[in-house]
Amino acid sequence: RERIRVIVFSRRFQQFIVAVILVNAATLGLETVPAAVARHGDLLTLIDHVALYVFVAELAAKMYVERWRFARDPWNVFDTLIVAVALLPATGGLSVLRSLRILRALRLLSVVPSLRRVVSALLRAMPGMSSIVLLLSLVLYVAAVMATKLYGRTAPERFGSLPSSLFTLFQTMTGDDWGNIAREVMTRHPSAWVFFTAFILVSTFIVLNLFMAVVVSAMEE
Amino acid sequence: RERIRVIVFSRRFQQFIVAVILVNAATLGLETVPAAVARHGDLLTLIDHVALYVFVAELAAKMYVERWRFARDPWNVFDTLIVAVALLPATGGLSVLRSLRILRALRLLSVVPSLRRVVSALLRAMPGMSSIVLLLSLVLYVAAVMATKLYGRTAPERFGSLPSSLFTLFQTMTGDDWGNIAREVMTRHPSAWVFFTAFILVSTFIVLNLFMAVVVSAMEE
Amino acid sequence: RERIRVIVFSRRFQQFIVAVILVNAATLGLETVPAAVARHGDLLTLIDHVALYVFVAELAAKMYVERWRFARDPWNVFDTLIVAVALLPATGGLSVLRSLRILRALRLLSVVPSLRRVVSALLRAMPGMSSIVLLLSLVLYVAAVMATKLYGRTAPERFGSLPSSLFTLFQTMTGDDWGNIAREVMTRHPSAWVFFTAFILVSTFIVLNLFMAVVVSAMEE
Amino acid sequence: RERIRVIVFSRRFQQFIVAVILVNAATLGLETVPAAVARHGDLLTLIDHVALYVFVAELAAKMYVERWRFARDPWNVFDTLIVAVALLPATGGLSVLRSLRILRALRLLSVVPSLRRVVSALLRAMPGMSSIVLLLSLVLYVAAVMATKLYGRTAPERFGSLPSSLFTLFQTMTGDDWGNIAREVMTRHPSAWVFFTAFILVSTFIVLNLFMAVVVSAMEE
Ligand code: NA
Ligand code: NA
Repeated sequence: RERIRVIVFSRRFQQFIVAVILVNAATLGLETVPAAVARHGDLLTLIDHVALYVFVAELAAKMYVERWRFARDPWNVFDTLIVAVALLPATGGLSVLRSLRILRALRLLSVVPSLRRVVSALLRAMPGMSSIVLLLSLVLYVAAVMATKLYGRTAPERFGSLPSSLFTLFQTMTGDDWGNIAREVMTRHPSAWVFFTAFILVSTFIVLNLFMAVVVSAMEE
Repeated sequence: RERIRVIVFSRRFQQFIVAVILVNAATLGLETVPAAVARHGDLLTLIDHVALYVFVAELAAKMYVERWRFARDPWNVFDTLIVAVALLPATGGLSVLRSLRILRALRLLSVVPSLRRVVSALLRAMPGMSSIVLLLSLVLYVAAVMATKLYGRTAPERFGSLPSSLFTLFQTMTGDDWGNIAREVMTRHPSAWVFFTAFILVSTFIVLNLFMAVVVSAMEE
Repeated sequence: RERIRVIVFSRRFQQFIVAVILVNAATLGLETVPAAVARHGDLLTLIDHVALYVFVAELAAKMYVERWRFARDPWNVFDTLIVAVALLPATGGLSVLRSLRILRALRLLSVVPSLRRVVSALLRAMPGMSSIVLLLSLVLYVAAVMATKLYGRTAPERFGSLPSSLFTLFQTMTGDDWGNIAREVMTRHPSAWVFFTAFILVSTFIVLNLFMAVVVSAMEE
Repeated sequence: RERIRVIVFSRRFQQFIVAVILVNAATLGLETVPAAVARHGDLLTLIDHVALYVFVAELAAKMYVERWRFARDPWNVFDTLIVAVALLPATGGLSVLRSLRILRALRLLSVVPSLRRVVSALLRAMPGMSSIVLLLSLVLYVAAVMATKLYGRTAPERFGSLPSSLFTLFQTMTGDDWGNIAREVMTRHPSAWVFFTAFILVSTFIVLNLFMAVVVSAMEE
């Protein structure tokens, strides 16, 4: 077992895995090119299968070496989930599952040290944001319920149902095309500008403070 | 009275109130789903009424316990106003009032400690912003009066009246669709680009400094 | 002269000037409401004239009191220019001049101490930004000349002349509707995405650093 | 050789070069004005040629003076590349090459000290961003492959090929018109909002952290 450990955690083996990930990402990208599929479709599928076998073998080796400690490292869980997606039976309707295979390229995050560090830093910033994200979600929910009740009949494609309203208000929060949406509603509800302006000011202010939380926590490090 | 105080401020009672708020927020959300209203409309109304009674009882108990100190805590005022909205008679035309009932979900802000802290922090950032907000409002007002006088006839839906101009310029400030608005005006007033470019540069610069004020005040804490 | 000085710089006199500015800003706003002009047009004009006389008298008093030191204070120059605009003859065509009268509301900036402080702070941030603004202007100019030569024939309303291109690229820089503009050009020049993507990345990066310069200079204070 | 060195690096000579760059930038700008070309086309071409000769002479002098140290300074390489572009034969089809001549105006970056300093600072900020830029590119690539496979048939102009998807998702990342793109896809794939919302949240979060990296590195200086 020690010998396998030395191999699996060797620099060279990791570089090999990075290479396999990159090649696999490239072949999955080529699968979107009809001409490439027509000509070299079999080759692309073959490479995809080989890459998958390599990943499964790598994870199996790591499990064998690390045993119960394997599941403790969240990166291992991440890798296992991503590889497992490809092992699910991809029947006709589940083209979504097939398209998820490209998520394997995200294995780079766990294998390349500099990316791993960046992602860890991003994840560490998250707990400090949780209260503000909760607040933002609450504001979004309250605004969506109000918008559905008030403007659902006037602009059914925008605010016809709670999910529609949530989507439209998230769009409004990103500042995309909100002027036209608001004007559409204002033809019937002239005072709707109050709702939209208030929502934009409040949500922008919260996002700004979300931002602050991240800056301050980044400073402290 | 001491006994009521112990109950009202107990951890368990507060968790109970949080639960009531969440359930009430969910039922108010379900009221936007026609199928849910058709099937369980009576149940939804019942839950809404019970939740309201609970909130009224909670506030009454707090008032009885704290007496004149009750009105001193702005969170109590906030809670009372939100609950009071639901007690107003919601006659036919006032569907706005009915839709405001969802604001009760915002009671989470006063009840959940972490949210309460975030909101307090947000509110503390406000006084430091007041001068810059005043400046921004002044710039917006001046620009709106100018735009109405200059472009009101050319683009009546955009700048036909002072409120229209204020809305359009607020939209411009958020960067939404301003290019098309400006081009529409420029067909008649070729030099309107000066107005729009200057307005965007000035307002962005002020917003940037508003932002700064918040960053610096956040740092100082 | 000392007596006039005491009056002109008294707290009460300044409050009076603030009141006149606010009233004048309101009447100039009311001038955009046709119904108000139809009914009280003469009154609005009268108030406007009285306000103007007050401002001229105030400035004359200050000039008399401070003499040659008057012109040294940039705020006095600012006030004089703004008032002077209204004294220019506003003949038929010059509706622009008439609309500039609302700029008088900006006199609040020089009269209200808190606004004066904010504006001074904004202006102090400017020299530190000059090099980056120069760089951004250079990039904008170079990109506009290139775009005019390359895409002027394909999209004449967007890039038909150097001013058009400057406007379109400024719009692109603010992120407004650039996707549609780029797609329009890409129907003829499929590789135009290189130009647009590069321009957005470079200009965003420069703006980000402009932002940095302001943050760092704000921190140092 | 020492005499040439003194001349080439004299303040006056550099001011002369700045003047030539500015005049050349102006004439290249004027070339976009048909009326100017019709009237003074020969003069514009003449000035362009003279400017080019001056730049070639300047670089030749610097090479002669500095010898092998010349190629060590990246600014010299930058200047040489920009001037070299104009010496390439601009045959009919290569209007792109002709339009690249305006890049000469960027020589200001290497000649004007304050601009040189700003650009150096911008470039120094880049290495610290490399990991996050890599992460962002990876996320963009993965999302583009997924979008092409999932939505390529539903919205062929948006997601019909990998390059299209990359462009559309970059546009989405800048927040431009993404609501309409998402709604177009959602008519067929109602759950596409998950993809778009997740992509916007993730990419915004990464950009925010990219931003942080720049702030923190700016602070450290
Ligand atoms: Na936008
Ligand atoms: Na837009």
